[in-house]
Amino acid sequence: MNARRPRRDTPGAGHRTRVGRERRARTHERIVAAALGVFAEKGPDAPVIEDFIHAAGVARGTFYNHFTSTAELLVATSRWLEDDLIRSIQAEIRGLEDPVARLITGLRMWLRKSQQDPAWCAFVVRSRTRGRLVERQLTADLRAGLRARALSAPSVEVARDLVVGAALEAMSRILRGRVPRTYADDVVRVVLRGLGLDERSIAQGMSLPVPEVAAR
Amino acid sequence: MNARRPRRDTPGAGHRTRVGRERRARTHERIVAAALGVFAEKGPDAPVIEDFIHAAGVARGTFYNHFTSTAELLVATSRWLEDDLIRSIQAEIRGLEDPVARLITGLRMWLRKSQQDPAWCAFVVRSRTRGRLVERQLTADLRAGLRARALSAPSVEVARDLVVGAALEAMSRILRGRVPRTYADDVVRVVLRGLGLDERSIAQGMSLPVPEVAAR
Repeated sequence: MNARRPRRDTPGAGHRTRVGRERRARTHERIVAAALGVFAEKGPDAPVIEDFIHAAGVARGTFYNHFTSTAELLVATSRWLEDDLIRSIQAEIRGLEDPVARLITGLRMWLRKSQQDPAWCAFVVRSRTRGRLVERQLTADLRAGLRARALSAPSVEVARDLVVGAALEAMSRILRGRVPRTYADDVVRVVLRGLGLDERSIAQGMSLPVPEVAAR
Repeated sequence: MNARRPRRDTPGAGHRTRVGRERRARTHERIVAAALGVFAEKGPDAPVIEDFIHAAGVARGTFYNHFTSTAELLVATSRWLEDDLIRSIQAEIRGLEDPVARLITGLRMWLRKSQQDPAWCAFVVRSRTRGRLVERQLTADLRAGLRARALSAPSVEVARDLVVGAALEAMSRILRGRVPRTYADDVVRVVLRGLGLDERSIAQGMSLPVPEVAAR
């Protein structure tokens, strides 16, 4: 009798849990993708919950299983946009072994995207928390650079806050209007100096090509 | 006859213009001061226009002569809080002639205030534009430091974005919870390194006392 009772760790139960999780993730993605269009059309403050439910083609109850407010959906959409760019960046920097080269190239691609895509930039600047992949990729490169003594900082958190803070403020300035042609690279340079890199290493890192960001 | 016609630049007309401007500034200040209490009590999103009109004791028409939305009033309140701190900082750094010493002491007082007053910190982090006095004081000190070659940066804008960006990201982290005891000074140190200061000058600047911020 014991053998017939389904246990929590049977392959069947695990399969059902996984399928449920995957379905939930797909619905989440579907709502966020639809929200992207709604926000792009109506702006960040005008849409109401009904707009998102209609655009995603989901039931009201399903929507509320995932999000409880427009503000929450705005944050999720922004994080999704950030993580989407990070995937493009990761594909390009995969060949770079040096964490400092990865950091520099990723940061320059990030700021180039901000200059090329004001809607993307406005979304990301608006949210005060960063995407999951952004944090993971940035922290990994900073930690590796600190461990190799190529970078120096009192802690990985301080290093991360310098990079993210300067990038966000640069994005705000880019959004407000025209900046000098060298502005984005100038910001990257002072950040790198703050992370303890000498002028020669900065010049070397900045001589690497900046890959084009794939258009969505 | 010409002598009897009031001219635009008579003392009387100038006086009336000045009185009108001063009255307008007083009403603005009165609404903002009342709003501070409303936001502190109800949070940033819950209050409606009526709350502010009631708290300030002004007519609806008068209110709309100054502000058109809660969001606009939130930004004005945040800027007013920033400028209020800058006045305390200016009183303390008046005796310091070295622009780098002024910059370091001002930045440390700013972050100390953020740690001591979470409500103040939350207000300031929420607004994406800085107060008028903040921009003026910071830019003046950075410009003087760059001119004296004590600091180096590609432009005063890049220097400003590094300082403001790192400070805002530090404030976000302070708001989210406990940070190591040395965290705020660690952020100041990497910012100063980014502005081209060597370790000796940083140590010297950080050895200056940080004056207490006057309680409101």
